Amino acid sequence: MAVYTQIGAETMARIIAEFDVGTLVSAKGIAEGVSNSNWLIETASEAGESQRFILTMYESRLDTGDLPFFLGLLDHLAACGCPVPRTIHDRDDRPFRFHDGKALALIEFLSGVSVSDPTAKQARAVGQALARTHLAVADFEGTRANSMGPDAWKKLFDDCRPEGLRTLHPDLAGTVASELAFLEAHWPESLPHSVIHADLFPDNVLMLDDEVSGLIDFYFACTEITAYDVAVTHAAWCFNDDGTHFDEEISMAFLAGYESVRPLSSEERSALPILARGASMRFLATRAYDWLNTPDDALVTPKDPLAFAQRLAFYSDPANAAIFNRTE
Amino acid sequence: MAVYTQIGAETMARIIAEFDVGTLVSAKGIAEGVSNSNWLIETASEAGESQRFILTMYESRLDTGDLPFFLGLLDHLAACGCPVPRTIHDRDDRPFRFHDGKALALIEFLSGVSVSDPTAKQARAVGQALARTHLAVADFEGTRANSMGPDAWKKLFDDCRPEGLRTLHPDLAGTVASELAFLEAHWPESLPHSVIHADLFPDNVLMLDDEVSGLIDFYFACTEITAYDVAVTHAAWCFNDDGTHFDEEISMAFLAGYESVRPLSSEERSALPILARGASMRFLATRAYDWLNTPDDALVTPKDPLAFAQRLAFYSDPANAAIFNRTE
Repeated sequence: MAVYTQIGAETMARIIAEFDVGTLVSAKGIAEGVSNSNWLIETASEAGESQRFILTMYESRLDTGDLPFFLGLLDHLAACGCPVPRTIHDRDDRPFRFHDGKALALIEFLSGVSVSDPTAKQARAVGQALARTHLAVADFEGTRANSMGPDAWKKLFDDCRPEGLRTLHPDLAGTVASELAFLEAHWPESLPHSVIHADLFPDNVLMLDDEVSGLIDFYFACTEITAYDVAVTHAAWCFNDDGTHFDEEISMAFLAGYESVRPLSSEERSALPILARGASMRFLATRAYDWLNTPDDALVTPKDPLAFAQRLAFYSDPANAAIFNRTE
Repeated sequence: MAVYTQIGAETMARIIAEFDVGTLVSAKGIAEGVSNSNWLIETASEAGESQRFILTMYESRLDTGDLPFFLGLLDHLAACGCPVPRTIHDRDDRPFRFHDGKALALIEFLSGVSVSDPTAKQARAVGQALARTHLAVADFEGTRANSMGPDAWKKLFDDCRPEGLRTLHPDLAGTVASELAFLEAHWPESLPHSVIHADLFPDNVLMLDDEVSGLIDFYFACTEITAYDVAVTHAAWCFNDDGTHFDEEISMAFLAGYESVRPLSSEERSALPILARGASMRFLATRAYDWLNTPDDALVTPKDPLAFAQRLAFYSDPANAAIFNRTE
């Protein structure tokens, strides 16, 4: 949760006036996002009609050179009918602006809530929505390297140092070293690639009852193995918080939903166990790094890395390889 | 800024279902309030009509025994046509409920933004709105002692200790001691009392253009010298942030606005200088205490106490006594 930058009402009104969205009538800093500040904005048209938006100010962690890709992707997906928020361009048709040296974008507000305990119906809907984005990006021209791919995991674990990892769990440094070696030797680079979300946790999905009303927070989107997005989303949705319990019903519903829109090839399906190990390593790496490097006075509470060591152990167990063959 | 408590979507939906306000469609934690957690809630009626509310969860600093007073005051003022948010009672007509041992209330959402650099027109509107609340509470039956009155200042300064105050400014301990003695000897207890807001800073006023659309955050409201509220609001609105610049145009507009609705008696007017010194001491006391006692890792950044030492010096200067006689 964070609002890193304070913006006074008069300044906010001037910022909003740069867009053709009516007059500012409300601006509330919201507690979302770890690398940017967000406001829920309400405007009124001359006829008094109310509209809502999210204003995002990108703080230092984001490379603004990536913004045309991220915001262009939202516009492309929205135009294809995917439930993602459109970017509102300013009066000069720019998708983002600068204020005090920081980039900011005005984005459509979407209703919906992020579930914390999904039902099978909801997991199926998420699978369908994810698959639709994978079809929709076929004619999207933007590309972006995955800044959180295997090379990045290795660097993050190096920065944690074996001593640091051992403070999290006595066996963790050894597990990480052998898993990195295994993944390097077996990573399936030849599978189909496309733009993927790469971070579709329940936090980043808005739902109304059993329907997906919004996919949000595309700031890790990149060009990657398409099925890796299935693996990331599987790891994000099919376990309890601490990773100790796998929910097969959710897994089957998610995979069935995905395949009802975009069937997996046999090569993709057989790669899912290793892709899911990679997905577990990706979040284990960032969480371990954040856990060991977050100052005690930070606004953001780091998330438990061991929850992804648990998932890694689950996906590495040959006894569990068949889960990806089971759908509803 | 703060959201101290996390509430999952499923739990939030159950909480909202306890009120007759339709179905939850959005809940965003908002960065407002220092002693409670707040969410901007959107619901939809069966006909699809959208409504918005603020859900407030009262954290440990608030005595829930005071909630019937605070929430009853909102309902009374709203019924009198004052621009304050109504409390939404639950299906059992309770103005607040408990969740996990903490009280929570659902309050009407009001549009508007908090200005940081008010115009004279806006200051006049704030004066009028404040005076209307002072007339409206004439038939409000609730009473509440002022937990931030002269006795509280003394205790807060005692807790800061002279050494602590000296770290803020070399002269501060001496100024505080002599001012406390002066106020104790001259505090005008015989003036008319009523329920007052007692904390009407720009943050707690929502404006649409030059109109007041909302007076919010009544959690310091109490039974006090009515004109003390004029003094608090004067100190809150008529200076720049660090208290070094007094804006006479704002002062005249605020007082003229107030008196256009509720003229001050000559006793009240002549007491304003000492009441404004008291108001300065009240915020100097809490800010000094918070400054010296806020842990470095707190979510809330303490506000500069010396901004109110500046105001105290201004109001104590006999050359400035005439400002309260000057209105537009």
